[in-house]
Amino acid sequence: MDRTDILQCLEEVAKGTLTPEQALQELIELPYKDLGFAKVDFHRNIRNGGTETIFCPGKTIDQIVEIFKVLASKSKNVMATRASQEIFQAVKEAVPEVEYNTQARIVYVWRDKQKTQGKVGVVSAGTADIPVAEEAALTAQIMGSDVERIYDVGVAGIHRLFDRRKEIQSCRVLVVVAGMEGALASVIGGLVSQPVIAVPTSIGYGASFHGLAALLSMLNSCASGVSVVNIDNGFGAGVLAHRINMLGETR
Amino acid sequence: MDRTDILQCLEEVAKGTLTPEQALQELIELPYKDLGFAKVDFHRNIRNGGTETIFCPGKTIDQIVEIFKVLASKSKNVMATRASQEIFQAVKEAVPEVEYNTQARIVYVWRDKQKTQGKVGVVSAGTADIPVAEEAALTAQIMGSDVERIYDVGVAGIHRLFDRRKEIQSCRVLVVVAGMEGALASVIGGLVSQPVIAVPTSIGYGASFHGLAALLSMLNSCASGVSVVNIDNGFGAGVLAHRINMLGETR
Amino acid sequence: MDRTDILQCLEEVAKGTLTPEQALQELIELPYKDLGFAKVDFHRNIRNGGTETIFCPGKTIDQIVEIFKVLASKSKNVMATRASQEIFQAVKEAVPEVEYNTQARIVYVWRDKQKTQGKVGVVSAGTADIPVAEEAALTAQIMGSDVERIYDVGVAGIHRLFDRRKEIQSCRVLVVVAGMEGALASVIGGLVSQPVIAVPTSIGYGASFHGLAALLSMLNSCASGVSVVNIDNGFGAGVLAHRINMLGETR
Amino acid sequence: MDRTDILQCLEEVAKGTLTPEQALQELIELPYKDLGFAKVDFHRNIRNGGTETIFCPGKTIDQIVEIFKVLASKSKNVMATRASQEIFQAVKEAVPEVEYNTQARIVYVWRDKQKTQGKVGVVSAGTADIPVAEEAALTAQIMGSDVERIYDVGVAGIHRLFDRRKEIQSCRVLVVVAGMEGALASVIGGLVSQPVIAVPTSIGYGASFHGLAALLSMLNSCASGVSVVNIDNGFGAGVLAHRINMLGETR
Amino acid sequence: MDRTDILQCLEEVAKGTLTPEQALQELIELPYKDLGFAKVDFHRNIRNGGTETIFCPGKTIDQIVEIFKVLASKSKNVMATRASQEIFQAVKEAVPEVEYNTQARIVYVWRDKQKTQGKVGVVSAGTADIPVAEEAALTAQIMGSDVERIYDVGVAGIHRLFDRRKEIQSCRVLVVVAGMEGALASVIGGLVSQPVIAVPTSIGYGASFHGLAALLSMLNSCASGVSVVNIDNGFGAGVLAHRINMLGETR
Amino acid sequence: MDRTDILQCLEEVAKGTLTPEQALQELIELPYKDLGFAKVDFHRNIRNGGTETIFCPGKTIDQIVEIFKVLASKSKNVMATRASQEIFQAVKEAVPEVEYNTQARIVYVWRDKQKTQGKVGVVSAGTADIPVAEEAALTAQIMGSDVERIYDVGVAGIHRLFDRRKEIQSCRVLVVVAGMEGALASVIGGLVSQPVIAVPTSIGYGASFHGLAALLSMLNSCASGVSVVNIDNGFGAGVLAHRINMLGETR
Amino acid sequence: MDRTDILQCLEEVAKGTLTPEQALQELIELPYKDLGFAKVDFHRNIRNGGTETIFCPGKTIDQIVEIFKVLASKSKNVMATRASQEIFQAVKEAVPEVEYNTQARIVYVWRDKQKTQGKVGVVSAGTADIPVAEEAALTAQIMGSDVERIYDVGVAGIHRLFDRRKEIQSCRVLVVVAGMEGALASVIGGLVSQPVIAVPTSIGYGASFHGLAALLSMLNSCASGVSVVNIDNGFGAGVLAHRINMLGETR
Amino acid sequence: MDRTDILQCLEEVAKGTLTPEQALQELIELPYKDLGFAKVDFHRNIRNGGTETIFCPGKTIDQIVEIFKVLASKSKNVMATRASQEIFQAVKEAVPEVEYNTQARIVYVWRDKQKTQGKVGVVSAGTADIPVAEEAALTAQIMGSDVERIYDVGVAGIHRLFDRRKEIQSCRVLVVVAGMEGALASVIGGLVSQPVIAVPTSIGYGASFHGLAALLSMLNSCASGVSVVNIDNGFGAGVLAHRINMLGETR
Repeated sequence: MDRTDILQCLEEVAKGTLTPEQALQELIELPYKDLGFAKVDFHRNIRNGGTETIFCPGKTIDQIVEIFKVLASKSKNVMATRASQEIFQAVKEAVPEVEYNTQARIVYVWRDKQKTQGKVGVVSAGTADIPVAEEAALTAQIMGSDVERIYDVGVAGIHRLFDRRKEIQSCRVLVVVAGMEGALASVIGGLVSQPVIAVPTSIGYGASFHGLAALLSMLNSCASGVSVVNIDNGFGAGVLAHRINMLGETR
Repeated sequence: MDRTDILQCLEEVAKGTLTPEQALQELIELPYKDLGFAKVDFHRNIRNGGTETIFCPGKTIDQIVEIFKVLASKSKNVMATRASQEIFQAVKEAVPEVEYNTQARIVYVWRDKQKTQGKVGVVSAGTADIPVAEEAALTAQIMGSDVERIYDVGVAGIHRLFDRRKEIQSCRVLVVVAGMEGALASVIGGLVSQPVIAVPTSIGYGASFHGLAALLSMLNSCASGVSVVNIDNGFGAGVLAHRINMLGETR
Repeated sequence: MDRTDILQCLEEVAKGTLTPEQALQELIELPYKDLGFAKVDFHRNIRNGGTETIFCPGKTIDQIVEIFKVLASKSKNVMATRASQEIFQAVKEAVPEVEYNTQARIVYVWRDKQKTQGKVGVVSAGTADIPVAEEAALTAQIMGSDVERIYDVGVAGIHRLFDRRKEIQSCRVLVVVAGMEGALASVIGGLVSQPVIAVPTSIGYGASFHGLAALLSMLNSCASGVSVVNIDNGFGAGVLAHRINMLGETR
Repeated sequence: MDRTDILQCLEEVAKGTLTPEQALQELIELPYKDLGFAKVDFHRNIRNGGTETIFCPGKTIDQIVEIFKVLASKSKNVMATRASQEIFQAVKEAVPEVEYNTQARIVYVWRDKQKTQGKVGVVSAGTADIPVAEEAALTAQIMGSDVERIYDVGVAGIHRLFDRRKEIQSCRVLVVVAGMEGALASVIGGLVSQPVIAVPTSIGYGASFHGLAALLSMLNSCASGVSVVNIDNGFGAGVLAHRINMLGETR
Repeated sequence: MDRTDILQCLEEVAKGTLTPEQALQELIELPYKDLGFAKVDFHRNIRNGGTETIFCPGKTIDQIVEIFKVLASKSKNVMATRASQEIFQAVKEAVPEVEYNTQARIVYVWRDKQKTQGKVGVVSAGTADIPVAEEAALTAQIMGSDVERIYDVGVAGIHRLFDRRKEIQSCRVLVVVAGMEGALASVIGGLVSQPVIAVPTSIGYGASFHGLAALLSMLNSCASGVSVVNIDNGFGAGVLAHRINMLGETR
Repeated sequence: MDRTDILQCLEEVAKGTLTPEQALQELIELPYKDLGFAKVDFHRNIRNGGTETIFCPGKTIDQIVEIFKVLASKSKNVMATRASQEIFQAVKEAVPEVEYNTQARIVYVWRDKQKTQGKVGVVSAGTADIPVAEEAALTAQIMGSDVERIYDVGVAGIHRLFDRRKEIQSCRVLVVVAGMEGALASVIGGLVSQPVIAVPTSIGYGASFHGLAALLSMLNSCASGVSVVNIDNGFGAGVLAHRINMLGETR
Repeated sequence: MDRTDILQCLEEVAKGTLTPEQALQELIELPYKDLGFAKVDFHRNIRNGGTETIFCPGKTIDQIVEIFKVLASKSKNVMATRASQEIFQAVKEAVPEVEYNTQARIVYVWRDKQKTQGKVGVVSAGTADIPVAEEAALTAQIMGSDVERIYDVGVAGIHRLFDRRKEIQSCRVLVVVAGMEGALASVIGGLVSQPVIAVPTSIGYGASFHGLAALLSMLNSCASGVSVVNIDNGFGAGVLAHRINMLGETR
Repeated sequence: MDRTDILQCLEEVAKGTLTPEQALQELIELPYKDLGFAKVDFHRNIRNGGTETIFCPGKTIDQIVEIFKVLASKSKNVMATRASQEIFQAVKEAVPEVEYNTQARIVYVWRDKQKTQGKVGVVSAGTADIPVAEEAALTAQIMGSDVERIYDVGVAGIHRLFDRRKEIQSCRVLVVVAGMEGALASVIGGLVSQPVIAVPTSIGYGASFHGLAALLSMLNSCASGVSVVNIDNGFGAGVLAHRINMLGETR
């Protein structure tokens, strides 16, 4: 609702086709509607396949079940991330159609299975990084992106990475998930011209300091086109990758 | 070039329709061509408007001038980042057409002025953040993106940010530059559904620890769709923003 | 007991209406009384509604019960913070009238329910920050302040924050509780001219480093008028907010 | 402008006493006016004695002079903080009446010398902490607070601190400035019931890590009622102290 | 295989002495064979006694058992590091001949017991450092090195270290394992001219920060010839020591 | 055994009053005896009342029992620090006379109860610091020092500290135990001219970072004469305090 | 002035031999006099040879000259630490008899040259550590201790350390000064039973992090009897060593 | 000199073929000779081509010249590291034959130019890393190793690295020098089975934290066989590489 909408509304009041009370009802929401930001929220859901997300940590199981029920009644796709098996069981009793991806730790209802033409590539280094990679991959999928998984291609055996080069280069945007020293992000960043979203994981020990080594490594990547999200933030990477992927879709 | 390509090429050699030298020419580049990664490099320049970049710190002025001359004879657009006035003077003697953006600290030749339909929005918080913002903006511009500058909209005066909301929302991808506590990235991230690249700056003092506060703040952003580059890395943000922007262009 | 009190006492000795032994008894406590600091303690209790507080961690349940009993026999209001359900049960056996606020984790006796005219506003970002917010809110309440709770108004959905702007601005002092990147403190600080006490929480993961990101963010707030307490220190914020609130009461 | 104001405005349109264009003009500014935040800004200046502030680092001398001139023509009191002697000279040429406090490093015009009944106490530990203390003190003074300076009372000679106890206790709010281990904040916090704003300074060496030791010390203060601002942030402490001080004034 | 090799191969195809299929076979492996890196992998196993290693953390017991079975059917020596007793039991059911070293936490099959002439010396400071030392020692042994264990020779009782000097100096390469302040690495480094691999351990408390103190200490060793691996990385030190040891074997 | 001792020994061999074998026996221990450092060890035990100490963490209960038995058969006083109740039970079966101090977590045999004339003062801030304080106190006592405990005198209630000033000043050396911000060390250091050994404890939360805040605070103490041991290292402080105390005894 | 003193004073008032005003005068100072802490200050100077010290950083040259003049007129020995050549020249003009130790960076007047029977040993690792070692040594000397310098005995050449073992063991208390990895403190601590004061220096580069590596190393020393002062704090170590040394003097 | 040597010596004394004084002379050096460590020093020089090294920082130019003169008169090869142009000039006046490598910042006399059969490979990432790489390379060369330089092969252009693969694999030991994210060490470590010594450099900005990012990255390398030296420590890497290289020489 912009300047002309308001003027039109006011003219209807002047003409009497709209009572002041009706106009008030419309204008009262103006601070948000006019800000245009609420529209954004609306748009976002449509373009994201209507995926609402619950971040489980810090919420009780009852709270999660309650929110999930409400969201599942309104939106086609709903996700609860960082969800335990226990949470899955509880949600399942309330919303029997939910599924659970053990590795991604996501409880979800996925009714609207859209699939983009372009692909989000999720590349991961070691087996232990797969849960975070899966969180990113499943998030992007439920939101509507086609996802290519390229796992277990750490730099310690760089030929395995080269075997998958075609698949890597065929993606529109890449999520690179790696713990320990996180060198994979730089190597991929040096090989492709697509946007790369690096996800440091907390995998490692000692001087990895719970992911700090990988995080700093990725932030200092000598390759251009690499940006970084929080340690273990597969969800955030998945959302961002999906949004970037959407830009390339012909609309 | 995969298995069948090579076989076909070899069969042509066997048939005599391709001389060994011709075949060699084709195959010799195979380690790179076949890797597909050299092609990428090639593509990148074309799509980026052929912009080659020199990162000045750690190079002598003579080295910079020499590299700049070579690149400027081959590529349409050339940039030298983190360049001092002194470097500009030295390069100018060798390549008289160079220009210098004092704030962005970029010395550049910009012959091929392409301009995308979609815009990269560069949003910055305080006046002191402008040099990093300009580095991002000019980088994206020289590479071929249309850029919208939205400066001085820090969260301490959030109404100024709201005045610019239309421009912010009209961009395809956003670079958010902020020092001190870096809260701007979260606020923008909460307002838009476009990809947001956050650039922490070293602006601040005391417990900002040369940009660490802003960096951590941005990595922990409660808004989805925000990723982060290194402290003060305007160039990296500009490159990445341009690449993401290019995805939305109709080709 | 100040200069004139002592002189008066000495004159009574000179007059013989007070024996030296009696005077000694009175003066012997002078080092503290005269320091004036003990008076402060006295005053503090009166103004705070006589609230004595036990910080539970590092004390055995027996110790806590014992101290609580003694305090509850002397003071109208008594609080035990960071108290588990188990501690509540044990204290309840000794002092049956105690209550327990599960979220705030405070066991308390609240006999003297004063209520200031001005309000302490407790604003929090995410659901997971509520326990710390509640600790601050209940602390200020038991001490005698009227408290306004404004929860779940994180910057990722800034319109929810704006919906509550009237309530926020109606408070005399604000406690802002936020984890992750802690941007809420800066946004609130930019919107109001009241004193803001920021409480970083340990909510988050990865590069939040158990609240360090929020702490640094808040310390570097670009808004004036913001000061910070320790991570998760809801109690400290509640005490300080109450003291500031008291300054505005007409006495 | 709230609900009833809008309704009234709309009824005038319905009645024809206001044209749609006139109503539009009024309503179009509603997002800010109605937000009430702009009013806050207005209020703030009035209550703060109309003190506008320029933070010098990151601005050129020309920029500072220009901004100072504009502000000095509109506001009674204007401050430029972290200002060098050179900045002072430049501003003085444009605004001859400016003064300069060398220790506080503040260039200022102070035409409206209001003075509160209550006092802001600024307490500092060592001689090297005085510049930060002076920044706090002068800031609070120019904003309109009466200020009591209690300097050089570090805990290594605690009797000097006790000599000043009367003055300390007579203040309405205290700013405590200390470097090295910052113990002074806890000692003062233990002695008074007034709000204490602790300012860690970067004074020290070795394991002081440029003020980190004092900062952490103050954040962990065992005394209630202590909050902390950024290292060396005398200005922020001064602003906050003034705001708290204002709460106690009879209006 | 370089330029001339390929040309020669192609000429043979042109001449008909090599069919396209045969040439393909040769060329198809070119990306790896020609890289020469795959050969390395092959070589490595032979020289290391064919020891394949599984790093257990982040893998399920089922995964570990499966991988172990496959490797044990192909390689003579197989190790699983950071393995719990539970993992040992599970692997034992599938591969009955496995053994378990409780201290080193290694499950292993050790069929090919080669033994170098030169020795790897593993020196450790305190009793609590022995698990990491054993991980290094057993790793080097299974890979084929003769190992000398010199335990419990911390610098707090430097005469015990001197009692073992002959054994220390008789080794070809030394692994020095120490927690707390890690001074042993410097002392050994000052006494010998052999390569020293320092392994900081997480043993300690308080300001050891989980091995950081020992790590920094070892990185700053005033003795030449000392390099460092990650905290608690006995395995890495064992592998590297074995490789260095192999250089001195007459082949 | 110095130059003249050796010469004398050799002359006896020359004279035949000592056989080469007897001389060998004497000289063979020369590397240590002559170093004079072994003598030190001998001295140390005598002066310390023969107290041998076992640091329990990282040792199995069996190992601890075994070492304790051996030491208890040779030395009058034996201590096992950081010992659990379970360790106490196990040692008690082997050495029935052992005692256990639950707070100090020390299992000990204390047969030789010497007591110095001078006193070691152990001062602690909060109740939660008492375990570390007790470890220091009991360590010094078993080694032979008279110990004065001055507990619960934190700076938040500085008058309680002043009540105990006589006792504090009557000690020859002071151990100051404090967590949180550790300000007590500076306050005591400013009040006395005796050596002060500061022990930071890990008591606190949030930005105490497990004792780092107190550690840095104490290292930066503005008072002279303060030195610091590791976080929670009550034992180390007790040993050092005893050694300093011994210097003042008339021998 | 204790209980009986006060009683006596009151009885004189009762008797009339003291007017209430006179008694007031006496009692009013009681808080300090009775605290006894001022006496301590007095005592301290006498025992320390009356050495007053000025810490130069953060003071102007004029301030330093002024303070030095005053102190030099009252005390026999005066020191100004961290003093530049320039400061020396300025002080020399005001107090011609001052001397300057370039390495220790101390400007001093040393009229009362007492010398203890026991010795403070100052041991340092590398040549670059000597300035800090000299600061400690000269401080202890001017205060009245006999000092033994044992320099350049780093652990990388441990035989040089053993050559000096007699001198090391002949001291009553040891100051050990070392940068880089600071291992010397542990080695000395393991060799002697005297109190050891470790001084980490900022000597080193890279991961020494300006002395942090040495600091952590020393705090985690595996040897008992070692305590630590701030990085580069030679003065603090000298003062403390002198105080400990004084305990062993027969008085 | 071991047990039997001493016995033999004593028997000669008993027989009279050795006077006690002669025997004393022999035995008196026993603590060091017998320790065998002095021999080591001797051996080291012979094997290292007799290279003595001076670390310049923290020494005056006069000291450096003096030490260099002495060493150059005794040893064939002498190096002074981290030497400025100014130091070179000063040394050159005293020892005219010295040379200076500007990049490596080494002043040296290289009379004995031995050259091993095996090669030390020095691999570096960016141009800015070359000074540290040169320090490593020249150090190893002067000590007697043949050195292969493979520069400018960072992972951002991984094909350049592959072009040099033959040279990399032909070396006996590799020094890998990289700043920023230090990923090169992992990539090389994954490609070769030779020992890899990783040298993080301080090249980078922002979150590189002066080399910390590269250091942590290298310590967490997912490739086996990688160990790490201090940030910018080219010299240490060169010494260690030479020692490892020597193990493979046929002696």
